[in-house]
Amino acid sequence: MLSKSQIKHVSSLKVKKYRELHGEFIAEGSKLVLELLVSKFSSIALYALKEWLNENKLPTGTKCDVFEVTESEMSRITSLSTPSPCLLTLRTRNVPFDTKIAAKELVLMLDSIKDPGNLGTIIRTADWFGFKNIVCSPDTVDLYNPKTIQSTMGSIAHVQVSYQSLDVLLDKLDKNISVYGSLLEGENILNKKLSSNGIIIIGNESKGISEKIRSYITEKIFIPGYQTDTALDKPESLNASIASAIICYEFRRSSIK
Amino acid sequence: MLSKSQIKHVSSLKVKKYRELHGEFIAEGSKLVLELLVSKFSSIALYALKEWLNENKLPTGTKCDVFEVTESEMSRITSLSTPSPCLLTLRTRNVPFDTKIAAKELVLMLDSIKDPGNLGTIIRTADWFGFKNIVCSPDTVDLYNPKTIQSTMGSIAHVQVSYQSLDVLLDKLDKNISVYGSLLEGENILNKKLSSNGIIIIGNESKGISEKIRSYITEKIFIPGYQTDTALDKPESLNASIASAIICYEFRRSSIK
Repeated sequence: MLSKSQIKHVSSLKVKKYRELHGEFIAEGSKLVLELLVSKFSSIALYALKEWLNENKLPTGTKCDVFEVTESEMSRITSLSTPSPCLLTLRTRNVPFDTKIAAKELVLMLDSIKDPGNLGTIIRTADWFGFKNIVCSPDTVDLYNPKTIQSTMGSIAHVQVSYQSLDVLLDKLDKNISVYGSLLEGENILNKKLSSNGIIIIGNESKGISEKIRSYITEKIFIPGYQTDTALDKPESLNASIASAIICYEFRRSSIK
Repeated sequence: MLSKSQIKHVSSLKVKKYRELHGEFIAEGSKLVLELLVSKFSSIALYALKEWLNENKLPTGTKCDVFEVTESEMSRITSLSTPSPCLLTLRTRNVPFDTKIAAKELVLMLDSIKDPGNLGTIIRTADWFGFKNIVCSPDTVDLYNPKTIQSTMGSIAHVQVSYQSLDVLLDKLDKNISVYGSLLEGENILNKKLSSNGIIIIGNESKGISEKIRSYITEKIFIPGYQTDTALDKPESLNASIASAIICYEFRRSSIK
């Protein structure tokens, strides 16, 4: 049985302030938990229903405490509307990004992404397209928000996500490294030669890339639509996670000879 | 001042049962409301703050009732956590899909998409890439869910969305029309000749395309990843709205000569 203070501690991790205070976050769902148990993140404690513990073999090397919980206890610590049979607490980490990486591979920089689902989806998609590093501006939504973690679908274990001032990093960047940014006045991405290394900046959901960061862009790109351009029929734009997915796809596609 | 029954009526439209009962739905946010006032949807009533009504000229042709409301009244009818200054109720519509359209243009079919944000994003992206018709299986999440409406960002006004049994429609389809579906065992989309008409099926978020519908697919496609394929480092998959965006993009891109 869980103590009151255990329940209070785990459920406090739904809130950013307490995640930062304790340096811990939660992950839920069988697949995600099993994957994170053997990832670069240190596991702290696993809370699971008896049936789940019977049915699932914990990966070799699992080092955390394991607590069998009842459904009623799980419902008090979960962050999901439909609780999963297992919940893992882990230690947060923030590895500083080394700008030298951008000389060798493509790196995503997120300038103030606000929706946790978008952030999680961008990480998941980046993983699919083999991007190993993402840098978030300090005002990007928290990586350890339970909704972000869920929507990465495990890709948080594969992609290195750092939080740092983008302008400070971009100032340090070698001048010969391309900085791509998606802008309305950009050039059709299909007409651009896309590099296999460098920085790709993705802007905020409603405001796009901030003015300060915009000045670092060396290659302005634009995803072509396919609509008749009458005033009333003009679509708004693309969602931030969709735009970043198409950009990641196009960089990879165009590199295949 | 709004009557109690007006407040009750509008706020009941957050629930699918009442949307179906009354044949009405709500849209919120200045841009969306102004766009929907002159769309193919019939507006019923506009509820707006005094300042909003002063600052915004209603489009010519606006026919609905207009009610000035206080912030407190708005907070009781809104479906948003941060209320917008205006809320519009509109008549729902379901126009049956004519399979002949697939002989002339590309049509998306959604097989049991469950997340309202995904559905809205798919509609928004389809609009960007010039898809004019989407058919949803009857068990796809409700188009008129406020979260779907919000995430279409106005594209609900441009794209025709129908709800019908996909198998019934696919049975009626001319045999020479291609039916594309994204499957794990599909062929790399980059190696396929993609048509400028036909059907593209997008499957459920966790289960993919259902077995019944899968049997109609004539062209199995697959979005190539770019990862090192070690067991631990393998990403899950792509989110349904991301996969459909990349497919829409690739159909349009590859058609450009």
